[in-house]
Amino acid sequence: MIYLDYTATTPLSSEIRKTYEKLLEKYFANSDSAYSLGYEVSQMQEASREHIAKLLDVRPDELIFTSCASEANNLAIKGTCFQYQNRGKHIITTAFEHSSINNTFKQLAEVFGFDVDYIGVDQEGHLKLDELKDKIREDTILVSTMYVNNEVGTVNPIKEISKIIHEANPKTKYHVDCVQALGKLPIDLSYCDLATFSAHKIFGLKGSGLLYKKHNTTLVPLICGGQQEMGLRGGTSNAATNIVLAKTMRLALEKRQEHYDYVKSLNDYLRSEVKKREGLVINSPDDASPFILNISAPHYKPEVIVHDLESHEIYLSTRSACTSKKTEISHSLAAMHLDDEVARSALRISLAHLTTKDDIDTFLKALDEALQHLKKQR
Amino acid sequence: MIYLDYTATTPLSSEIRKTYEKLLEKYFANSDSAYSLGYEVSQMQEASREHIAKLLDVRPDELIFTSCASEANNLAIKGTCFQYQNRGKHIITTAFEHSSINNTFKQLAEVFGFDVDYIGVDQEGHLKLDELKDKIREDTILVSTMYVNNEVGTVNPIKEISKIIHEANPKTKYHVDCVQALGKLPIDLSYCDLATFSAHKIFGLKGSGLLYKKHNTTLVPLICGGQQEMGLRGGTSNAATNIVLAKTMRLALEKRQEHYDYVKSLNDYLRSEVKKREGLVINSPDDASPFILNISAPHYKPEVIVHDLESHEIYLSTRSACTSKKTEISHSLAAMHLDDEVARSALRISLAHLTTKDDIDTFLKALDEALQHLKKQR
Repeated sequence: MIYLDYTATTPLSSEIRKTYEKLLEKYFANSDSAYSLGYEVSQMQEASREHIAKLLDVRPDELIFTSCASEANNLAIKGTCFQYQNRGKHIITTAFEHSSINNTFKQLAEVFGFDVDYIGVDQEGHLKLDELKDKIREDTILVSTMYVNNEVGTVNPIKEISKIIHEANPKTKYHVDCVQALGKLPIDLSYCDLATFSAHKIFGLKGSGLLYKKHNTTLVPLICGGQQEMGLRGGTSNAATNIVLAKTMRLALEKRQEHYDYVKSLNDYLRSEVKKREGLVINSPDDASPFILNISAPHYKPEVIVHDLESHEIYLSTRSACTSKKTEISHSLAAMHLDDEVARSALRISLAHLTTKDDIDTFLKALDEALQHLKKQR
Repeated sequence: MIYLDYTATTPLSSEIRKTYEKLLEKYFANSDSAYSLGYEVSQMQEASREHIAKLLDVRPDELIFTSCASEANNLAIKGTCFQYQNRGKHIITTAFEHSSINNTFKQLAEVFGFDVDYIGVDQEGHLKLDELKDKIREDTILVSTMYVNNEVGTVNPIKEISKIIHEANPKTKYHVDCVQALGKLPIDLSYCDLATFSAHKIFGLKGSGLLYKKHNTTLVPLICGGQQEMGLRGGTSNAATNIVLAKTMRLALEKRQEHYDYVKSLNDYLRSEVKKREGLVINSPDDASPFILNISAPHYKPEVIVHDLESHEIYLSTRSACTSKKTEISHSLAAMHLDDEVARSALRISLAHLTTKDDIDTFLKALDEALQHLKKQR
């Protein structure tokens, strides 16, 4: 099997799985129970929070365990909006976000009367920073941008964006969806007021997310409940999952540079090979994250190519899995205003340190064959 | 170890754990990925949903997987409130709910301007049904009550409450928190518009909840995102967890009556023994769920008793774990307006089919000794 869809999700590391299984077998108490069985679980969970805080160079009380990155994104955005709505109801995001951001902003506009501005991107997916600067107002309470786009791999200049926002309005909160950056690019949270992370994109568990919230930022909880997570996220702690997140993040971060360099070399090779093929177009900019390469095969139906490759046990996607059942053009590519035929025929190849050069060669060969024997359909 | 805190959480069944671990080892694909690896996971998840639908006698498309019961409660209540707020902003709950309900209603009042009425309970914790009847108005869009109280065990008459609500206002939605009823009492969802369930109270995984939503009820999503859960709950599906929920519920439901009868006999015995002891008071009404017995040892600090019992490896609580760090009187007991000294000295004993008569005897002996050697503190 050749898996080229690491952006959608990653296999669970057997090391992480084994640690998790031991926790599941040995510890079951409610971490909020006021006796030793509970304390023990609670202490391990707080040790995990402290460990992650060190890895991210933040305070433990700035970290909130969530059930996934989508929850963290919703908590960050709605929590900020409802907290600071008396200060203003203007919020900004980009035309280029994951569905959990995009649909949250849509809901805030439609259900809660917030005034939303979307910053555009150029044909390479680079954010129009001038547009951002112009849009920030006195009543802008939040800006949310991703760090690395999940369909094209474009990298946003977080430091520069943060500077633009906070110079224009020091009170505006800046949220960054770091899901596709964690374990891949360096992350400096000093520029963010809020940031989102996911475990299952870095060989960890599904059902495991994390929100960073700067100590001077206040949130209205999304899931009201008991005293868990400093009152910001109710529900009996999913302690074993939260405990193993520290190990998941440590493993991803300690080999980050090594993995990056290796994947960069693979991506360079893949790019050079794709460029040799006349019928293919590269949609990812040169400075994109090397973990994603978005290409198009104009006049082919990408779903048909995906299914053909699948017969060779090669797995990749046409777009984000979260919107895989939609038939129109990928949200990110639409925002880039590419040629329609190019946008309609996109394939997202995503790589990891587990990918080999042989995998790339096998994929390219299968792709060549597919393009030869599949009918151009449009 | 004698565990008498099954209401807080249950040990994970080894049968469920093993099935789950096999899923974790074998399947990792994103269930929304448009290739066979994803389909396979998606099909297992949908089979689980269908299985649960049969167990609960509802439609599969009426079930939403969530990360916990608190999330399901928040989704049910906020989702209904935001969906139907143009019809009215009056909502009703009881003075006797879990923190995930209580704090959600509080937030709806304080942040979103909803008009909340709280129905009282009598000294046995029985809901004042006349009060409920009187409070329902033209603009009442939602009533939420639990089925079984988590601190005292009082059982609400769901069918009767549903009749009162729907006769007074057919458009009012009725949400029932069934967490402490599942696998214990019979559940007929035909009386509910919305209902909440949890896995970790029935020997399943933490991080696993379920919301039933009648097909003619619409919700504004709490966690916006992709196409998952019919667009009502974003985030990459925690598929292995969702798949194993069917088995968790089947195991709990197929032995429900047997477990009930056994635990009822244990509870009868425990009650009769507690009644023999002059210094103890029973707070749970005679018709409470037999899985919970709330008692008080007036003039003792209950935390001190809990710690003393812990030295004999006997584990129980004074109240809900979700509010264990609060020092005031339990929310449920406060609502019952018990004598202050009684309310202040409560212990919650909770039982399961795993509890033995020997466990009860050992507990009673240790409690007798504790009450003898501990100083009356107030």
